[in-house]
Amino acid sequence: MAVTLLDTWASPFGMRVRIALEEKGVKYEYIEQDLRNKSPLLLQMNPLYKKVPVLIHNGKPICESLIAVEYVDEMWNDKSLLLSSDPYKRAQSRFWADFVDKKVYGPGRKTWTEKGEEKEAAKKDFIESLKLLEGELGDKPYFEGDKLGYMDVALVPFYCWFHGYETFGNLSIEEECPKLIAWCKRCMQKESVSKSLADPQKVCNFMGEVRKKFGLE
Amino acid sequence: MAVTLLDTWASPFGMRVRIALEEKGVKYEYIEQDLRNKSPLLLQMNPLYKKVPVLIHNGKPICESLIAVEYVDEMWNDKSLLLSSDPYKRAQSRFWADFVDKKVYGPGRKTWTEKGEEKEAAKKDFIESLKLLEGELGDKPYFEGDKLGYMDVALVPFYCWFHGYETFGNLSIEEECPKLIAWCKRCMQKESVSKSLADPQKVCNFMGEVRKKFGLE
Repeated sequence: MAVTLLDTWASPFGMRVRIALEEKGVKYEYIEQDLRNKSPLLLQMNPLYKKVPVLIHNGKPICESLIAVEYVDEMWNDKSLLLSSDPYKRAQSRFWADFVDKKVYGPGRKTWTEKGEEKEAAKKDFIESLKLLEGELGDKPYFEGDKLGYMDVALVPFYCWFHGYETFGNLSIEEECPKLIAWCKRCMQKESVSKSLADPQKVCNFMGEVRKKFGLE
Repeated sequence: MAVTLLDTWASPFGMRVRIALEEKGVKYEYIEQDLRNKSPLLLQMNPLYKKVPVLIHNGKPICESLIAVEYVDEMWNDKSLLLSSDPYKRAQSRFWADFVDKKVYGPGRKTWTEKGEEKEAAKKDFIESLKLLEGELGDKPYFEGDKLGYMDVALVPFYCWFHGYETFGNLSIEEECPKLIAWCKRCMQKESVSKSLADPQKVCNFMGEVRKKFGLE
C-alpha cells in the first residue's frame, strides 16, 4: 500500500496524522508499534528519534506529527485544506499548534506522572494553557473559523487523554474550560476525529498501569 | 514602516528572520531589544513567550523564528522561494530545521554554560548532531540543493556562535566537520547571510561576560 502509518494506539501525536488522513480520505495501512520492542521498520524509518508516528508514503518516511499533517495537507491538496492559504493565518495556526506541543503536552503529562508540588504546578500550568487556548478559540466553531483546520487537528487528540488527567490529577477540565470542551465535542461529531481518537476509558486504564509501574499508585 | 523586527543582536533565531528578509529584499526597521528590561512593545507583541525575534507586519506580530521565516517566504513569494514546492522536500526541510532547534541549540549552549560531565556530554551531543547534519548535506552546495533554502537559513546563524563554542568548549568544529564548515563559508559569501550574522569575536566576548556573571570563569 502506498501510505502506511507507524503508530501506537494511545499516541495523541499519531492521532493528528490519522485525522489528517481521514479528512483527506486517504486509505492507509496502520501498523501498531510496540515501543518497548521497537520494530526494524520503525528504526529504519525514524533512525534519529525512533518515535511514532511515522507516515510512510511511497517508501519515504515523514517524521514528526505536525510536519506529517502539513505533508498530508499539501500532498492531497485537492481536498479541503487544513491550513488557510493566507500567510498570516497559516503563521497563527502554526504558532498555536507549536504552543500545544510546548505548553499542553508537557504539563498534561505531569498531572498524572508527578507527585506533590510538581504535580500541583503542572495542573496550574495545564489549565492556564487550556484557558489561553479557549481565549484564542473565542466564539468561533473551530480554531481556524468555520471548519476543522490544522490547529484543531493539533489539539483535539488530547481530548481522549482528558479523562485520565481529570482522574489522576483530580481536575475538572469542563468546569475550568467549558467552551473548550464544547469545541472538543463539536470536533468529535466529525467522523475523521471520532474514528481516530482512542477510547478515553482505555487511555485512562493505560495511564493507571503506567502509574502502578512507576510506583505512583 | 510596514515591517519591523524586534530582535537582539546576538540571537541566532533573530538572524534567521533577518536572512529571510534580506533574501526577499524586504526593507524593515530593526529594533534592538534589551531582554533584561523588556519593552512594552515586546510584551504586547509576544505576551506568551516575551521572547525575540518578533516580526511585525502591518501591525500584526509573527512569533517563533521558523514560523516567521515561513511567513516571509509565503508573503513575499514573488522572489525565489526558500522552501521547495515539493511536499516531501518541504517536509524534509522542516524536519531538519526542527532538528536544529532540538539537537543543535541546546547542546551548543551547554558547551559554554555547563561544567564537568554535563559539559563533556553536551560537546559529544553537539558534534554528533553536526555530523548528522553534515551527512544530510552530503555533497550538495546547500541543504536544499543548488541554492540557499529554508534549512540553510535555520542552521547558518549558529556559525557565528561556533568561535565561542570552540573557545569555551575546547573544541575544533572544523576538524570534526570540515564539510559543514565549508558550507558555512559558502553561505557567508551571500550578502543576505554575511550582513545578518553577528561578529563571531563579539559573540565570543558576550559569552565570556555571561560566563563571568555565572561564576564559570
